Amino acid sequence: MGGGNHTTHTISVLVENKPGVLARVAGLFSGRGFNIESLTVAETDDPTVSRMTIVTSGDAKIMEQINKHLNRLIDVIKVVDLSTEKFVDRELVLLKVKADAEQKAEIMRLVDIFRGSIVDVSPRSYTIEVTGDEDKIVAFIDLMRPFGILEIARTGRIAMARGHKAL
Amino acid sequence: MGGGNHTTHTISVLVENKPGVLARVAGLFSGRGFNIESLTVAETDDPTVSRMTIVTSGDAKIMEQINKHLNRLIDVIKVVDLSTEKFVDRELVLLKVKADAEQKAEIMRLVDIFRGSIVDVSPRSYTIEVTGDEDKIVAFIDLMRPFGILEIARTGRIAMARGHKAL
Repeated sequence: MGGGNHTTHTISVLVENKPGVLARVAGLFSGRGFNIESLTVAETDDPTVSRMTIVTSGDAKIMEQINKHLNRLIDVIKVVDLSTEKFVDRELVLLKVKADAEQKAEIMRLVDIFRGSIVDVSPRSYTIEVTGDEDKIVAFIDLMRPFGILEIARTGRIAMARGHKAL
Repeated sequence: MGGGNHTTHTISVLVENKPGVLARVAGLFSGRGFNIESLTVAETDDPTVSRMTIVTSGDAKIMEQINKHLNRLIDVIKVVDLSTEKFVDRELVLLKVKADAEQKAEIMRLVDIFRGSIVDVSPRSYTIEVTGDEDKIVAFIDLMRPFGILEIARTGRIAMARGHKAL
Protein backbone atom coordinates (compact mmCIF):
# COMPACT_ATOMS: atom_id res chain seq x y z
CA MET A 1 0.00 0.00 0.00
CA GLY A 2 1.15 3.58 0.51
CA GLY A 3 0.72 5.75 -2.50
CA GLY A 4 -2.50 3.88 -3.27
CA ASN A 5 -4.14 3.60 -6.68
CA HIS A 6 -5.65 6.42 -8.66
CA THR A 7 -9.13 6.16 -7.13
CA THR A 8 -8.56 5.61 -3.40
CA HIS A 9 -7.36 8.64 -1.45
CA THR A 10 -6.28 9.00 2.14
CA ILE A 11 -6.96 12.47 3.50
CA SER A 12 -5.67 13.87 6.79
CA VAL A 13 -7.75 16.69 8.23
CA LEU A 14 -6.71 18.73 11.24
CA VAL A 15 -9.74 20.29 12.94
CA GLU A 16 -10.51 22.29 16.04
CA ASN A 17 -11.61 19.87 18.77
CA LYS A 18 -15.11 21.38 19.01
CA PRO A 19 -18.64 19.92 18.94
CA GLY A 20 -20.17 19.77 15.49
CA VAL A 21 -17.01 19.50 13.39
CA LEU A 22 -17.44 15.82 12.65
CA ALA A 23 -21.12 16.36 11.81
CA ARG A 24 -20.16 19.10 9.33
CA VAL A 25 -17.47 16.99 7.69
CA ALA A 26 -19.70 13.90 7.47
CA GLY A 27 -22.58 16.05 6.23
CA LEU A 28 -20.38 17.52 3.49
CA PHE A 29 -19.50 14.05 2.22
CA SER A 30 -23.04 12.67 2.33
CA GLY A 31 -24.68 15.87 1.06
CA ARG A 32 -22.49 15.93 -2.04
CA GLY A 33 -22.43 12.19 -2.57
CA PHE A 34 -18.74 11.76 -1.79
CA ASN A 35 -17.89 8.27 -0.62
CA ILE A 36 -16.39 7.52 2.85
CA GLU A 37 -14.66 4.12 3.03
CA SER A 38 -13.44 4.65 6.56
CA LEU A 39 -13.06 7.54 8.97
CA THR A 40 -11.26 7.93 12.26
CA VAL A 41 -11.18 10.96 14.53
CA ALA A 42 -9.25 11.36 17.77
CA GLU A 43 -7.29 13.97 19.69
CA THR A 44 -3.76 14.92 18.71
CA ASP A 45 -0.98 15.80 21.13
CA ASP A 46 -2.64 19.23 21.35
CA PRO A 47 -6.01 18.65 23.06
CA THR A 48 -7.58 21.61 21.20
CA VAL A 49 -6.88 19.91 17.86
CA SER A 50 -8.27 16.63 16.51
CA ARG A 51 -7.05 14.72 13.50
CA MET A 52 -9.35 12.91 11.10
CA THR A 53 -8.22 10.35 8.57
CA ILE A 54 -10.73 9.85 5.79
CA VAL A 55 -10.38 7.18 3.12
CA THR A 56 -12.41 8.16 0.08
CA SER A 57 -12.43 7.58 -3.65
CA GLY A 58 -12.92 9.60 -6.78
CA ASP A 59 -11.18 11.04 -9.80
CA ALA A 60 -8.98 14.16 -9.73
CA LYS A 61 -11.97 16.48 -10.17
CA ILE A 62 -13.86 14.98 -7.23
CA MET A 63 -10.77 15.09 -5.04
CA GLU A 64 -10.34 18.76 -5.87
CA GLN A 65 -13.94 19.42 -4.85
CA ILE A 66 -13.56 17.49 -1.59
CA ASN A 67 -10.41 19.43 -0.80
CA LYS A 68 -12.02 22.79 -1.61
CA HIS A 69 -15.18 22.14 0.40
CA LEU A 70 -13.28 20.77 3.41
CA ASN A 71 -11.03 23.84 3.45
CA ARG A 72 -14.11 26.08 3.53
CA LEU A 73 -15.63 24.41 6.59
CA ILE A 74 -15.53 26.22 9.91
CA ASP A 75 -13.01 24.71 12.37
CA VAL A 76 -11.05 22.92 9.64
CA ILE A 77 -7.40 23.89 10.10
CA LYS A 78 -5.62 21.89 7.41
CA VAL A 79 -6.40 19.33 4.71
CA VAL A 80 -3.74 17.12 3.11
CA ASP A 81 -4.34 14.42 0.50
CA LEU A 82 -1.56 12.04 1.48
CA SER A 83 -2.05 10.05 -1.71
CA THR A 84 -0.14 12.75 -3.60
CA GLU A 85 3.07 11.84 -1.73
CA LYS A 86 4.75 8.85 -0.07
CA PHE A 87 3.03 7.84 3.13
CA VAL A 88 2.81 5.11 5.76
CA ASP A 89 -0.65 3.73 6.48
CA ARG A 90 -1.77 1.35 9.18
CA GLU A 91 -4.95 -0.13 10.47
CA LEU A 92 -5.86 -2.17 13.55
CA VAL A 93 -8.42 -4.96 13.65
CA LEU A 94 -9.96 -6.95 16.49
CA LEU A 95 -11.36 -10.25 15.27
CA LYS A 96 -13.25 -12.90 17.26
CA VAL A 97 -13.03 -16.30 15.62
CA LYS A 98 -14.35 -19.76 16.50
CA ALA A 99 -11.50 -21.87 17.87
CA ASP A 100 -12.41 -25.48 18.54
CA ALA A 101 -9.73 -27.76 19.96
CA GLU A 102 -8.56 -29.10 16.60
CA GLN A 103 -8.31 -25.61 15.09
CA LYS A 104 -6.40 -23.79 17.81
CA ALA A 105 -2.90 -24.75 16.67
CA GLU A 106 -3.51 -23.62 13.09
CA ILE A 107 -5.06 -20.31 14.20
CA MET A 108 -2.07 -19.69 16.51
CA ARG A 109 0.32 -20.32 13.61
CA LEU A 110 -1.47 -17.77 11.44
CA VAL A 111 -1.53 -15.22 14.27
CA ASP A 112 2.24 -15.69 14.67
CA ILE A 113 2.89 -15.32 10.94
CA PHE A 114 0.94 -12.06 10.92
CA ARG A 115 2.66 -10.91 14.13
CA GLY A 116 -0.73 -10.54 15.74
CA SER A 117 -1.62 -11.39 19.29
CA ILE A 118 -4.46 -13.13 21.07
CA VAL A 119 -6.03 -10.63 23.44
CA ASP A 120 -8.91 -12.73 24.80
CA VAL A 121 -9.68 -16.44 25.02
CA SER A 122 -12.88 -18.33 25.69
CA PRO A 123 -13.30 -22.13 25.57
CA ARG A 124 -14.49 -21.94 21.96
CA SER A 125 -13.09 -18.68 20.60
CA TYR A 126 -10.06 -16.43 20.32
CA THR A 127 -10.09 -12.65 20.02
CA ILE A 128 -7.12 -11.59 17.91
CA GLU A 129 -5.45 -8.21 17.37
CA VAL A 130 -3.62 -7.56 14.09
CA THR A 131 -2.03 -4.38 12.77
CA GLY A 132 -0.89 -3.64 9.25
CA ASP A 133 -1.68 -1.99 5.96
CA GLU A 134 -4.97 -2.78 4.28
CA ASP A 135 -3.58 -5.66 2.16
CA LYS A 136 -2.30 -7.43 5.25
CA ILE A 137 -5.53 -6.88 7.21
CA VAL A 138 -7.67 -8.15 4.33
CA ALA A 139 -5.40 -11.20 3.86
CA PHE A 140 -5.66 -12.05 7.55
CA ILE A 141 -9.45 -11.72 7.57
CA ASP A 142 -9.65 -13.98 4.50
CA LEU A 143 -7.53 -16.61 6.25
CA MET A 144 -9.73 -16.51 9.38
CA ARG A 145 -13.01 -16.79 7.45
CA PRO A 146 -13.00 -20.62 7.11
CA PHE A 147 -12.74 -20.99 10.92
CA GLY A 148 -15.88 -18.91 11.43
CA ILE A 149 -15.58 -15.19 12.16
CA LEU A 150 -17.91 -14.28 15.03
CA GLU A 151 -17.23 -10.55 15.14
CA ILE A 152 -14.91 -7.98 13.65
CA ALA A 153 -14.02 -4.38 14.51
CA ARG A 154 -11.66 -2.36 12.31
CA THR A 155 -10.31 1.07 13.14
CA GLY A 156 -10.06 2.19 9.53
CA ARG A 157 -6.82 3.62 8.22
CA ILE A 158 -4.52 6.17 9.80
CA ALA A 159 -1.64 7.55 7.78
CA MET A 160 1.35 9.86 7.83
CA ALA A 161 3.72 11.25 5.20
CA ARG A 162 7.09 9.50 5.05
CA GLY A 163 10.22 11.39 6.05
CA HIS A 164 10.76 14.26 8.46
CA LYS A 165 7.95 16.49 7.21
CA ALA A 166 4.95 16.90 9.52
CA LEU A 167 1.37 17.87 8.69
CA MET B 1 -8.75 -0.09 30.70
CA GLY B 2 -11.74 -2.27 29.83
CA GLY B 3 -14.82 -1.79 31.92
CA GLY B 4 -13.95 1.90 32.06
CA ASN B 5 -15.07 4.37 34.73
CA HIS B 6 -18.61 5.63 35.28
CA THR B 7 -18.32 8.58 32.89
CA THR B 8 -16.50 7.21 29.82
CA HIS B 9 -18.50 4.83 27.66
CA THR B 10 -17.49 2.79 24.64
CA ILE B 11 -20.40 2.19 22.28
CA SER B 12 -20.45 -0.21 19.34
CA VAL B 13 -22.95 0.66 16.63
CA LEU B 14 -23.71 -1.61 13.69
CA VAL B 15 -25.11 0.38 10.77
CA GLU B 16 -26.10 -0.21 7.17
CA ASN B 17 -23.15 0.74 4.96
CA LYS B 18 -25.04 3.56 3.22
CA PRO B 19 -24.28 7.23 2.53
CA GLY B 20 -25.49 9.60 5.22
CA VAL B 21 -25.40 7.24 8.21
CA LEU B 22 -22.27 8.78 9.68
CA ALA B 23 -23.67 12.29 9.14
CA ARG B 24 -26.85 11.35 10.99
CA VAL B 25 -24.97 9.78 13.90
CA ALA B 26 -22.53 12.70 14.18
CA GLY B 27 -25.41 15.17 13.83
CA LEU B 28 -27.30 13.45 16.65
CA PHE B 29 -24.32 13.84 18.98
CA SER B 30 -23.58 17.46 18.10
CA GLY B 31 -27.25 18.50 17.92
CA ARG B 32 -27.95 17.25 21.42
CA GLY B 33 -24.63 18.28 22.90
CA PHE B 34 -23.36 14.74 23.47
CA ASN B 35 -19.60 14.52 23.57
CA ILE B 36 -17.52 12.42 21.11
CA GLU B 37 -14.02 11.61 22.39
CA SER B 38 -13.18 9.42 19.44
CA LEU B 39 -15.02 7.71 16.61
CA THR B 40 -14.05 5.08 14.09
CA VAL B 41 -16.12 3.66 11.28
CA ALA B 42 -15.15 0.93 8.84
CA GLU B 43 -16.64 -2.05 7.04
CA THR B 44 -17.27 -5.33 8.84
CA ASP B 45 -16.84 -8.77 7.29
CA ASP B 46 -20.25 -8.14 5.67
CA PRO B 47 -19.71 -5.30 3.17
CA THR B 48 -23.32 -4.09 3.60
CA VAL B 49 -22.71 -3.46 7.31
CA SER B 50 -20.31 -1.00 8.94
CA ARG B 51 -19.29 -0.87 12.56
CA MET B 52 -18.75 2.35 14.49
CA THR B 53 -17.00 2.60 17.82
CA ILE B 54 -17.84 5.80 19.66
CA VAL B 55 -16.16 6.82 22.90
CA THR B 56 -18.38 9.26 24.73
CA SER B 57 -19.04 10.40 28.29
CA GLY B 58 -22.03 11.16 30.45
CA ASP B 59 -24.05 9.93 33.42
CA ALA B 60 -26.57 7.09 33.23
CA LYS B 61 -29.38 9.39 32.09
CA ILE B 62 -27.35 10.79 29.18
CA MET B 63 -26.23 7.31 28.14
CA GLU B 64 -29.86 6.19 28.11
CA GLN B 65 -30.72 9.13 25.83
CA ILE B 66 -27.81 8.41 23.48
CA ASN B 67 -28.85 4.77 23.28
CA LYS B 68 -32.50 5.65 22.64
CA HIS B 69 -31.77 8.23 19.96
CA LEU B 70 -29.21 6.02 18.17
CA ASN B 71 -31.70 3.14 18.07
CA ARG B 72 -34.26 5.43 16.44
CA LEU B 73 -31.96 6.47 13.58
CA ILE B 74 -32.57 5.07 10.12
CA ASP B 75 -29.95 2.47 9.08
CA VAL B 76 -28.84 1.80 12.67
CA ILE B 77 -28.99 -1.97 13.17
CA LYS B 78 -27.72 -2.44 16.71
CA VAL B 79 -26.32 -0.37 19.59
CA VAL B 80 -24.36 -1.87 22.48
CA ASP B 81 -22.78 0.04 25.36
CA LEU B 82 -19.78 -2.21 25.97
CA SER B 83 -19.02 -0.40 29.22
CA THR B 84 -21.84 -2.38 30.87
CA GLU B 85 -19.87 -5.62 30.44
CA LYS B 86 -16.28 -6.87 30.25
CA PHE B 87 -14.57 -5.86 27.03
CA VAL B 88 -11.21 -5.63 25.28
CA ASP B 89 -10.27 -2.25 23.86
CA ARG B 90 -7.35 -1.30 21.66
CA GLU B 91 -6.06 1.72 19.83
CA LEU B 92 -3.34 2.27 17.25
CA VAL B 93 -1.11 5.34 17.07
CA LEU B 94 1.41 6.54 14.50
CA LEU B 95 3.87 8.99 16.02
CA LYS B 96 6.66 10.90 14.29
CA VAL B 97 9.35 11.98 16.74
CA LYS B 98 12.64 13.85 16.41
CA ALA B 99 15.52 11.37 16.63
CA ASP B 100 18.94 12.94 16.67
CA ALA B 101 21.96 10.64 16.82
CA GLU B 102 22.32 10.77 20.60
CA GLN B 103 18.62 10.05 21.17
CA LYS B 104 18.12 7.12 18.84
CA ALA B 105 19.20 4.38 21.26
CA GLU B 106 16.89 5.59 24.01
CA ILE B 107 13.93 5.92 21.64
CA MET B 108 14.58 2.38 20.34
CA ARG B 109 14.62 1.06 23.92
CA LEU B 110 11.24 2.65 24.66
CA VAL B 111 9.77 1.33 21.40
CA ASP B 112 10.94 -2.18 22.36
CA ILE B 113 9.51 -1.91 25.88
CA PHE B 114 6.14 -0.90 24.42
CA ARG B 115 6.37 -3.62 21.75
CA GLY B 116 6.02 -0.97 19.11
CA SER B 117 7.81 -0.84 15.81
CA ILE B 118 9.54 1.77 13.72
CA VAL B 119 7.71 2.00 10.40
CA ASP B 120 9.66 4.85 8.78
CA VAL B 121 13.06 6.45 9.29
CA SER B 122 14.52 9.74 8.15
CA PRO B 123 17.95 11.12 9.07
CA ARG B 124 16.41 13.11 11.95
CA SER B 125 13.17 11.33 12.79
CA TYR B 126 11.46 8.02 13.46
CA THR B 127 7.84 7.18 12.73
CA ILE B 128 6.64 4.68 15.33
CA GLU B 129 3.60 2.42 15.49
CA VAL B 130 2.23 1.40 18.89
CA THR B 131 -0.91 -0.55 19.78
CA GLY B 132 -2.55 -0.88 23.17
CA ASP B 133 -5.26 0.28 25.49
CA GLU B 134 -5.60 3.99 26.17
CA ASP B 135 -3.38 3.96 29.28
CA LYS B 136 -0.52 2.41 27.33
CA ILE B 137 -0.92 4.78 24.38
CA VAL B 138 -1.01 7.84 26.64
CA ALA B 139 2.03 6.61 28.59
CA PHE B 140 3.98 6.11 25.36
CA ILE B 141 3.07 9.56 24.03
CA ASP B 142 4.15 11.13 27.35
CA LEU B 143 7.51 9.35 27.10
CA MET B 144 8.06 10.55 23.53
CA ARG B 145 7.17 14.19 24.29
CA PRO B 146 10.64 15.22 25.60
CA PHE B 147 12.25 14.09 22.31
CA GLY B 148 9.96 16.37 20.31
CA ILE B 149 6.78 14.97 18.77
CA LEU B 150 6.48 16.16 15.17
CA GLU B 151 3.16 14.56 14.34
CA ILE B 152 0.65 12.15 15.77
CA ALA B 153 -2.28 10.19 14.33
CA ARG B 154 -4.49 8.05 16.58
CA THR B 155 -7.20 5.71 15.38
CA GLY B 156 -9.36 6.13 18.45
CA ARG B 157 -10.60 3.09 20.32
CA ILE B 158 -12.10 -0.11 18.95
CA ALA B 159 -13.57 -2.62 21.37
CA MET B 160 -15.22 -6.01 21.68
CA ALA B 161 -16.98 -7.89 24.50
CA ARG B 162 -14.85 -10.56 26.17
CA GLY B 163 -15.80 -14.23 25.80
CA HIS B 164 -17.60 -16.07 23.03
CA LYS B 165 -20.54 -13.67 22.68
CA ALA B 166 -20.66 -11.57 19.50
CA LEU B 167 -22.42 -8.27 18.85
